[in-house]
Amino acid sequence: MRENVAVNTLHDPTARGFASDNYAGVHPEILAAIAAANGGHQVAYGEDVYTARLQEVMATHFGPRAQAFPMFNGTGANVVSLQSMLPRWGAVICAETAHIQSDENGAPERVGGLKLLTVATPDGKLTPELVDRQAWGWGDEHRAQPGVVSITQTTELGTAYTVAEVTALAAHAHELGLGVHMDGARIANAAASLDLPLRAFTTDAGVDLLSFGGTKNGLLFGEAIVVLAPEASTGLGYLRKMDMQLASKMRFVSAQLIALLEGDLWLRSAQHANAMAARLRAAVEPLDGVTLTQQTQSNAVFAILPAGVADRLRASFRFYDWNEATGEVRWMCAFDTTEADVDAFAAALRAELKA
Amino acid sequence: MRENVAVNTLHDPTARGFASDNYAGVHPEILAAIAAANGGHQVAYGEDVYTARLQEVMATHFGPRAQAFPMFNGTGANVVSLQSMLPRWGAVICAETAHIQSDENGAPERVGGLKLLTVATPDGKLTPELVDRQAWGWGDEHRAQPGVVSITQTTELGTAYTVAEVTALAAHAHELGLGVHMDGARIANAAASLDLPLRAFTTDAGVDLLSFGGTKNGLLFGEAIVVLAPEASTGLGYLRKMDMQLASKMRFVSAQLIALLEGDLWLRSAQHANAMAARLRAAVEPLDGVTLTQQTQSNAVFAILPAGVADRLRASFRFYDWNEATGEVRWMCAFDTTEADVDAFAAALRAELKA
Amino acid sequence: MRENVAVNTLHDPTARGFASDNYAGVHPEILAAIAAANGGHQVAYGEDVYTARLQEVMATHFGPRAQAFPMFNGTGANVVSLQSMLPRWGAVICAETAHIQSDENGAPERVGGLKLLTVATPDGKLTPELVDRQAWGWGDEHRAQPGVVSITQTTELGTAYTVAEVTALAAHAHELGLGVHMDGARIANAAASLDLPLRAFTTDAGVDLLSFGGTKNGLLFGEAIVVLAPEASTGLGYLRKMDMQLASKMRFVSAQLIALLEGDLWLRSAQHANAMAARLRAAVEPLDGVTLTQQTQSNAVFAILPAGVADRLRASFRFYDWNEATGEVRWMCAFDTTEADVDAFAAALRAELKA
Amino acid sequence: MRENVAVNTLHDPTARGFASDNYAGVHPEILAAIAAANGGHQVAYGEDVYTARLQEVMATHFGPRAQAFPMFNGTGANVVSLQSMLPRWGAVICAETAHIQSDENGAPERVGGLKLLTVATPDGKLTPELVDRQAWGWGDEHRAQPGVVSITQTTELGTAYTVAEVTALAAHAHELGLGVHMDGARIANAAASLDLPLRAFTTDAGVDLLSFGGTKNGLLFGEAIVVLAPEASTGLGYLRKMDMQLASKMRFVSAQLIALLEGDLWLRSAQHANAMAARLRAAVEPLDGVTLTQQTQSNAVFAILPAGVADRLRASFRFYDWNEATGEVRWMCAFDTTEADVDAFAAALRAELKA
Repeated sequence: MRENVAVNTLHDPTARGFASDNYAGVHPEILAAIAAANGGHQVAYGEDVYTARLQEVMATHFGPRAQAFPMFNGTGANVVSLQSMLPRWGAVICAETAHIQSDENGAPERVGGLKLLTVATPDGKLTPELVDRQAWGWGDEHRAQPGVVSITQTTELGTAYTVAEVTALAAHAHELGLGVHMDGARIANAAASLDLPLRAFTTDAGVDLLSFGGTKNGLLFGEAIVVLAPEASTGLGYLRKMDMQLASKMRFVSAQLIALLEGDLWLRSAQHANAMAARLRAAVEPLDGVTLTQQTQSNAVFAILPAGVADRLRASFRFYDWNEATGEVRWMCAFDTTEADVDAFAAALRAELKA
Repeated sequence: MRENVAVNTLHDPTARGFASDNYAGVHPEILAAIAAANGGHQVAYGEDVYTARLQEVMATHFGPRAQAFPMFNGTGANVVSLQSMLPRWGAVICAETAHIQSDENGAPERVGGLKLLTVATPDGKLTPELVDRQAWGWGDEHRAQPGVVSITQTTELGTAYTVAEVTALAAHAHELGLGVHMDGARIANAAASLDLPLRAFTTDAGVDLLSFGGTKNGLLFGEAIVVLAPEASTGLGYLRKMDMQLASKMRFVSAQLIALLEGDLWLRSAQHANAMAARLRAAVEPLDGVTLTQQTQSNAVFAILPAGVADRLRASFRFYDWNEATGEVRWMCAFDTTEADVDAFAAALRAELKA
Repeated sequence: MRENVAVNTLHDPTARGFASDNYAGVHPEILAAIAAANGGHQVAYGEDVYTARLQEVMATHFGPRAQAFPMFNGTGANVVSLQSMLPRWGAVICAETAHIQSDENGAPERVGGLKLLTVATPDGKLTPELVDRQAWGWGDEHRAQPGVVSITQTTELGTAYTVAEVTALAAHAHELGLGVHMDGARIANAAASLDLPLRAFTTDAGVDLLSFGGTKNGLLFGEAIVVLAPEASTGLGYLRKMDMQLASKMRFVSAQLIALLEGDLWLRSAQHANAMAARLRAAVEPLDGVTLTQQTQSNAVFAILPAGVADRLRASFRFYDWNEATGEVRWMCAFDTTEADVDAFAAALRAELKA
Repeated sequence: MRENVAVNTLHDPTARGFASDNYAGVHPEILAAIAAANGGHQVAYGEDVYTARLQEVMATHFGPRAQAFPMFNGTGANVVSLQSMLPRWGAVICAETAHIQSDENGAPERVGGLKLLTVATPDGKLTPELVDRQAWGWGDEHRAQPGVVSITQTTELGTAYTVAEVTALAAHAHELGLGVHMDGARIANAAASLDLPLRAFTTDAGVDLLSFGGTKNGLLFGEAIVVLAPEASTGLGYLRKMDMQLASKMRFVSAQLIALLEGDLWLRSAQHANAMAARLRAAVEPLDGVTLTQQTQSNAVFAILPAGVADRLRASFRFYDWNEATGEVRWMCAFDTTEADVDAFAAALRAELKA
């Protein structure tokens, strides 16, 4: 009979790839925070001391009006945020590449009852002009009523909105009577890229609600809706529950977020991941046959490779096709990507290109 | 500047009450399993080795056809299960006290598009006769079409269905063409209570889909839909994603469930919680003024107290009203409830009753 | 080759039964109104002169604040009304026998995202005390939040709320912060039964929104949501469209409602149907073997017959079982039911009972 | 006191414009059919003789496997059709200009739980190549699963798919495992334009489900889902009811559709409307300042006018902007548009252009 079944490691803890920051595990400081929050009884569903403390921590980053609602995952944070900002007949203006449009199997529509009004973009970023392509038709009962602009920071294409860009977008949206939601699944990477405090391109730039991402930045699981403009949102507590995103042992989500945000872990991890992507870009950019398709402003590198190269490379390193039609691939770095990982990958790519 | 912010304990890890098994934290063996599954990269969203291993572990408990789908929480497991068993026009027959009816803020209706057809019960348990009160009207397009019977084991009232009871219910349901779903948020407590293997009152008794509960039995978070009869369910993978229940770092949900189920942790913890409830019942049953309203077949004790006693008692021990109209209260024990906790609580109750 | 295919009558226009007021056709005055509204172009979707005139007509019945929204059918009127009164997390308190609960295949839940909190009643009528069984739990995110009391006038059991009863219910609901919705599928029958103007038991009694029924009272099709308290409802125009209840050629719905309500057609027809039900009750009440189960306060008679009688009777007259378990049947009269119809039916029943 | 309130005409029955075929009234032959179906009792909700007869009539047009489900309106027909063809996780590929995408206030998403995957087109028509832009990702739980291609015939831009085009699209869709839905709100105009029987470009071309349009072609109200390939659809009866599209007095919807389709009324009316559009195009095409933006293959003309002209013209003739950004307008002809109407409109336009 096996003795210590609970501490069984089934995988190779030294293997890493470039598929996704979701493939990485939990930062040791986060695990320590979970352990520290353990023991004894704490009120379930958010009335615990960790969730109370989280409010204070979030306020240091996002200002005194900030209210945090821990959630299970990013899709949940996005859908619940948007529902709280819109009436039943509301619509969301977003980029065609937005995660809510492309990677959530219709959760915004099916769970949220939302209509998405999409706009094509070259780099994943909306502009006031692009917003205007869908920002019309108010009062016409035949059209889903635009009520929110949702942007992703950093975008699904690895680009980062500048403060000026977010500010202009939010000002334009507010002039039109639209709320502003930010999907911040990789918001720490944006802050690291811009070298700015979080509130500079969120609260201070006019964002109303934020899906704050933790999982891709070293949490076991857990995101938070951060309400930056309380008047822009209603019913979040009820919506979170009915949308099945209310964690019973919430203290452990909050404790992770506190550990991430109370010190500089959030920033250290993001800076590191960004640096690894920059290193990767620098290593592959000179190579014949490699076409980089987006700027590298965070922890992702997008490239087009000669036919066959990607598949051969995947024999040793896992990563994803981004656009099968064009042969574009995506390489993601994580908080635990090492310089050696990058160098080995670049070397392998170099070898394949010569093969 | 603070050094080790991540390992800050904000609560009193020695304080425990009788409010909910959700108030308890994480069993140390579960925390160890999470740590063991950490490090390196693993495919996200369920293609990892832990989720693969979980399939084998579940099969040892529920038979070779069992398929496990890790989920974030119990409401998610219930709603996704039921959707996978029903067409868009389907309805679920359940007890009036069922968690899906009373404690999920309409998630089955709002997220799942399901209609619940409820039946009043004395003890939270359906019977074939009670099912028949709602099992009619097939082919009538005006009526939501009954398609599933959903039972809770142990029930929300702390009672446990016997093997014979589940078998009779499932046979009746299947004769009527209805599927059988079990909300097993406290299924381990049921197994401990019945002193039977899990499959005796699930797979072998005719249950088709199970919401397997982990959180209330010492997990950090995490439940699993266990498909026992694959022909009774379709599209679970898609439904889990669109219902926002797909964990990206799923290895950590699966590792917890493995640690719970590979050895006997699941049973040890449940037996202990049940024993504490039995000890509590034995201590308070003889007291004048205490009316026990349900049998104590798991980790819950239900009682009616004289006016004012519950509120005074709550100054020292947290617990919930069950029915404010009748003055009924619920006391829950958890895997970490101690004999001393029970004895102190019983003593406090005794003192209040005399006051 | 056939000449005038369009004017082909395929059925026996002299045959009538006691199944439903929906089995009756269109009152000749209604058909004439449709013809009078025909010809030329009128703005679609409600900006026509008939819909404008309808507002004035409704105001004469329901007061100057009344706003009418023509709808296709009663389920649509109910669901759109309730959505307009409730946030996404709202719930409706209603009788277990309410049409929204029993006869709409879950439209309130599936289309409306609403949770229904039902109460058993002896006669289809809610009371303040019965409302209180479900009116609790505000602020508890786990519970669907009660926001509206919905009553049916006349009820599905043929009974009518008195002015005092509606007033007491509405006052109680409003005290609790709940809105009041009336499903008035047979509201004209209620007015005829109470011998009161429509507003006496609606606007003046505290009802906020009304589903005004036309189809069962001689319209070809068409109902209207009548907003009595504009502050209790929001977004009706958008909701009607997205719920697929916006008629393009709305002038013809409005013209029918004008024809019904501008003169006394609504009342004449309802008085007649009620009188026929009263005649039927008087004829069958004395018969051995007939147990009348509800008061006859409108156009329906409910009765329990000896085994086999109902089925034999149905060889000549169509009508519905109400409760197969108890053998209860329902006989409905319509605007076109004749005294001869009633007498023939009563005679046939008498004969069957002796057989 | 007014005598004959029911036959009051409030509008000018000689005024007509070019705004919409929905602005027109009811064809006299349709009104006569309604009157002929009146009187006596008929089973409600579709078990009447007219709905039975409609099945035969539809079969003469669409083949022996055709099954017709009368509906209230086109949005209802579209949403119920698509739901019946797709699982809960399904998606619909359609043109960006499709009515389901642009003019239904999100009903497909909000009521149907459907995801729409849109493609830009020059003329409102999909092609196999355009379908391929969205036809991918099966098995990926993160993406809404493409299951149906929906096309509009004639399109929202007045163009008509040829038999070859529909056949190629349907063959391609079926090869990919996708169903084919046709929104036939103006299907009669397509048949008139193509000079072909209805089944040539529907059943025989591979269309699985059809939303058959009646309202825009002279009905008072009423459309029908026509199932052409019964194996492609499930649960239509239940879906129609729960989506609030089940007419109680269905005989009157069916009688209208019979009158439309039993003889050649459907074709006469469509041919006339198309001819009026052709006449209008011929009259305005030579005019300086008029740019025609689409081919005129049915009853609509699309044009761009010099700034200010459209608004001045609207003082006498009602019509809609199609694209405010480009100044494009749409002129629709109906079954009752006269040559004199067209000529007067063209003359007025000529005068405005010279002004």
